Parts: sequence; C-alpha cells; structure tokens
Amino acid sequence: MINIAIIGYGNLGQGVRSALEKTTDMKLTALFTRRDKLLEREAHNTPVFNSENFSLPGDLQIDVAILCGGSKEDTPVQGPLFARSFSTVDSFDTHADIPGYFQKMDSTTKEHGNVSIISAGWDPGIFSLERVLGDAFLPRGKGYTFWGPGVSQGHSDAARKVEGVLDARQYTIPIDNTLQQVRSGSVSDFSKREMHKRVVYVVAQEGADQERISREIVEMPNYYADYNTKVIFVTKEELAKNHSTYPHGGFVLTSGVTGRNNLQILEYKCQLKSNPEFTGSVLVACARAAFRLKEKGYKGAFTMLDVPPALFSPHPNDVLLSKFM
Amino acid sequence: MINIAIIGYGNLGQGVRSALEKTTDMKLTALFTRRDKLLEREAHNTPVFNSENFSLPGDLQIDVAILCGGSKEDTPVQGPLFARSFSTVDSFDTHADIPGYFQKMDSTTKEHGNVSIISAGWDPGIFSLERVLGDAFLPRGKGYTFWGPGVSQGHSDAARKVEGVLDARQYTIPIDNTLQQVRSGSVSDFSKREMHKRVVYVVAQEGADQERISREIVEMPNYYADYNTKVIFVTKEELAKNHSTYPHGGFVLTSGVTGRNNLQILEYKCQLKSNPEFTGSVLVACARAAFRLKEKGYKGAFTMLDVPPALFSPHPNDVLLSKFM
Repeated sequence: MINIAIIGYGNLGQGVRSALEKTTDMKLTALFTRRDKLLEREAHNTPVFNSENFSLPGDLQIDVAILCGGSKEDTPVQGPLFARSFSTVDSFDTHADIPGYFQKMDSTTKEHGNVSIISAGWDPGIFSLERVLGDAFLPRGKGYTFWGPGVSQGHSDAARKVEGVLDARQYTIPIDNTLQQVRSGSVSDFSKREMHKRVVYVVAQEGADQERISREIVEMPNYYADYNTKVIFVTKEELAKNHSTYPHGGFVLTSGVTGRNNLQILEYKCQLKSNPEFTGSVLVACARAAFRLKEKGYKGAFTMLDVPPALFSPHPNDVLLSKFM
Repeated sequence: MINIAIIGYGNLGQGVRSALEKTTDMKLTALFTRRDKLLEREAHNTPVFNSENFSLPGDLQIDVAILCGGSKEDTPVQGPLFARSFSTVDSFDTHADIPGYFQKMDSTTKEHGNVSIISAGWDPGIFSLERVLGDAFLPRGKGYTFWGPGVSQGHSDAARKVEGVLDARQYTIPIDNTLQQVRSGSVSDFSKREMHKRVVYVVAQEGADQERISREIVEMPNYYADYNTKVIFVTKEELAKNHSTYPHGGFVLTSGVTGRNNLQILEYKCQLKSNPEFTGSVLVACARAAFRLKEKGYKGAFTMLDVPPALFSPHPNDVLLSKFM
C-alpha cells in the first residue's frame, strides 16, 4: 500500500480523497490543513495536522504528500517544505514560473532523496503531454490549445474585485468556428479573441451601477480586454442554483503535413463535469508514479513529460502488454 | 546526429524516409531491402544492402534500425536479427503476439546491449498510450477504441482472396451513432456490429458472379461476418483513381465518474491522410527515444508505455518546461 497525505482540504483536496477511494493500492494516512478544528468532524478517523506547524508521530507512514493548495501562495512554500520529508505531487499551474519552480524542487528533492512530480493535472499536465507528443510526431506542424467550456477561477476572482460585485462566475468558451477551422486543417495564427470568448455571471450589490460594472469587467486588461465578453447579472440564488459546479475541459490539436503534403490531425479532448475531482484523480495516478520512481532509485523533480506512462497505471506490465497495447 | 537505417522500403519505409527529412538531429545512413537491384536508382546516395544477407563496411555508422516490414513474416525474424547489432524500432501489430515478441526482443537486446522500442505507431502505439492514460486517470471507467474511417490492409487482402476478385480495397468506418452515445456518457457494451461497419470496393474478373463474390465477402468469418458490410463493384480504373491512398484514423475514448457521480470523458482522435507516412513519423520519434535510452545506459525492450514522453521530442528540457508545459 502507498501511504498518501493530502495537504490542503479544499475542492482539490476533497477530489484527491475521492480518487483515492477508487484505488486498491493506495490509502490516505494524514490530512494537513490550516483549518484543523473545522476538519476534525469531516476527517473520519484520518489524523489531521496543521499544515503550517506540525510534528508527526513516529509511527505515521507517509510515502507521498499531494499538495492541494493554491499555486499563488501555497505550493511555492509547501512544495520545498514537504519535499524535504516526503515525495510530493502538485498541480502548480503558474505557467511562467514552472521552470523556476522545477529547479527549486529538483534541488530540494535531490538533497533529501525524494521524488516530486510537479505541475500535474490536465493543464499543465495531460495537455502538456499531448502538446509534446503532437509536436514530436508531427514536426514542423502547428499546435493549438482551446480551453472550455468551463469555469476559470482566476477570471472569476478578477471579476469579483470590481467595485459593486458581490460574487461572479466566469466561463471560458472556445469559439466553435475557429475550432472547426483547425480541425479542417487551417494553420492560421488566430488571435485570443478568435479562439475564446468569455461569459461572466455577476451578482451585483443592490443599487450598484450595472453599466459601469459591465464596462469595467469587459475592459479589464489581461483578463478580459482581449476577448469578447458578455456580462450577465443574476441573483445570488440563481448563481448558487445554476453555477455552483466546476465543469471544465478543452482541446489540444496538432496539425501537420507529412511526405507528399498529406494532412495529419491529432486531437485530444476532455469534457469534465468536475475539474477539481478530475485533477485530483490525475494527481493520485501521479502519486503512484512518484512512489514507484523513488522505489526504483530515482530522486529529483519530474513533470508528467518525464514519467514512463506505465507508472501511472494500477496494472502490472503483463496486463498492459496483453490488454492495453 | 543519430544514424538511422531503414529495413524494408515499401510504403512504411518511404514514410520513415520522408519523416527523417523533417528532423535536424537524425540522418539516413543505410537502406536494407530484398529488392536491392530495383532500389539502387531510388536510393539517392544512400547505401543499399540486401536485408537477408548483408555484410556492412566497417565505417558505416548505424545507431537505430527502423524495421518497416510486415508483422506477419518480416518483423518476427528481422527484430531479433537486427537487435543483435543495433537498437531497433518496429511497428509489430499482431496484438495477441505482442507479449511473446516483447520477451524475445527483451532477452536479445539485453544480451547485446541495445534498446528496442516495439509495437510503435498509432495502434498499437499512441492509442495504447491513450488507453493506459485514460484508465489510470479514470479508474473503474470504461474505454472504447473506434477505428476509421480508413483503409484496412488485412481486410482488403482477405477480400482479394475470394475467387473472381482481381483487386479490393476495404474501408473500416466507425458507427457515428455509437460514437455519439459514448461521447454522451454511455458505458454500454457495444457489439462489433454496433461499433464499426465495412465497405469494400471490388474489381471483379470479367464475367465473374458478382452476387456470389458479394455473399462470400459479407459472410467471411472473423473478417466480415460480425459487421454490416457493403460490397461495391468498380472498374480497375475507378479503384486506381479513387482508392489509391491510405487514409486512416480513429478514436480512443475513456468515460468514467469521479466523486459525487461527476461524468468525465477523455477523447483522443486522429485523422490521417496517410497512414504509412504518419506511422513512419511516429517511428522516427521513437528512434530518437531509443537512441537516448541507450545513451542513458538502458538496455532491453520497451513499448511506448515505458518511454518518458520527453524523449520523443526534438526539444531540450528547458524548452519543454518553458514552452510546452
């Protein structure tokens, strides 16, 4: 059995917990959270520790710590901290900072003899893998990533910061016509606006100026200004009723020609009813791989690009050879 | 530079050759064929050897031999033969024999210090990878593979053996309605007939009984009897004009639920205008990986499931971390 600790028990941590229940080779042995009082009721016999200030009993076995906090403030601190004691898996997704974070985790884990799989999940993670495979199998081809339809946490947060906004939920939606063009072999450079649009459901304060709120969202640089954005005002109750889940998904396409100008198109697509539960499920498969890599004598930081795919699987090699090839 | 030999110069071997031309880190140094007289004209300064009886000049450098013969008679013999002298890549695709072939190649390569990546291409190969990933990320989910629309060599050959048939070309076509059901979350067990249909274009001998030919094809066990099959008679000229290319493709879908019964669907799809050229392109990426694995000190047989995906890529790790993650 592989002993797993969950660090951070929000939506993602709960997703990891339910994913662990579907495995037969892994078990949850500890939960770490800042909200330990709150959690004792929910923990169902799992020992709970404060993630900022813990001392562990000597008989507590943890093979892999799965970091489920945010990429902005939690993972950059918790990654190097936990990687001193355990192998780790995280879904660090600040794309521009991945090379720096990789270096930091690589030196920590090499020093302490652990394995860390960083930036796992579906993007970064599976989508990264599909981008690399597409590019390797169709060199000089062209790759496209479309996200959605689905809820973007970062864009929802940005809309919530506008004065007069009580709550907001943003959906990223791929532009179907552009997707169809890529599927038909177009290798154009599409603008951000041509690839995605945004729809924001907003709960406004009573008496707030909806026109100003709408304008401030639509014109917000980085987040909204480069896209066609639709703002829809709803009541608190409507938001709770119709927009409380976390669907997401997307597409990775690679289009290239081979030999005598023959068009070849590869497409990976995921449709997720629950983004945190699916991400949790991927992190659990990565924890299995991290454990096995360490068992084989490896140490250091890895991304999903560096892991032999068979290590993610619960099945032994003879089953993979006979049933999956 | 990675030095490549092509073993067998039919459609696949020519696909490998054009794929090599798109790389900057690999070059063709030798061609092996049974038809060496025929080939000398086409080889454009590449040395040509008889694949059954060769002795190589001492200064000829070959790092990886890419086996491009048939799975029935060529690869089972050429694999163990060439793996004594070089690392190899092949697309051995007799699914039931893969475990046995793996063992044979594993012991040969371990004895001679080489690396062989077997059963590479799109299925087995990329599709195997996607089946394993889908199953690992959605445990207790359900996987489906659909093939086509595309030309199946084996089914075309079978139809050609019917008396009175001069030539035939068979298309495997996925049943769209079933594909849509899986995309919508169905996890039913579909019969062969529910998943695929077959269309065969036949050139008959003058005066042959078309009704009998049609019946013999449609009722042929293993190949056709389990499917709805349509036989269409065409002239030799029509077959040459409309059915001389090798398009193919297919779909790997995994459907599963996580946590609170949330449906998650993963789909991989490829649409190929030229099956042998795309397969050739995948084999070339695998040759790069085989070379690197040997450089790192590995020996033995691998499938694409055992190879860290970054090794397929022409890009160094820092580029993968900054541009592809």
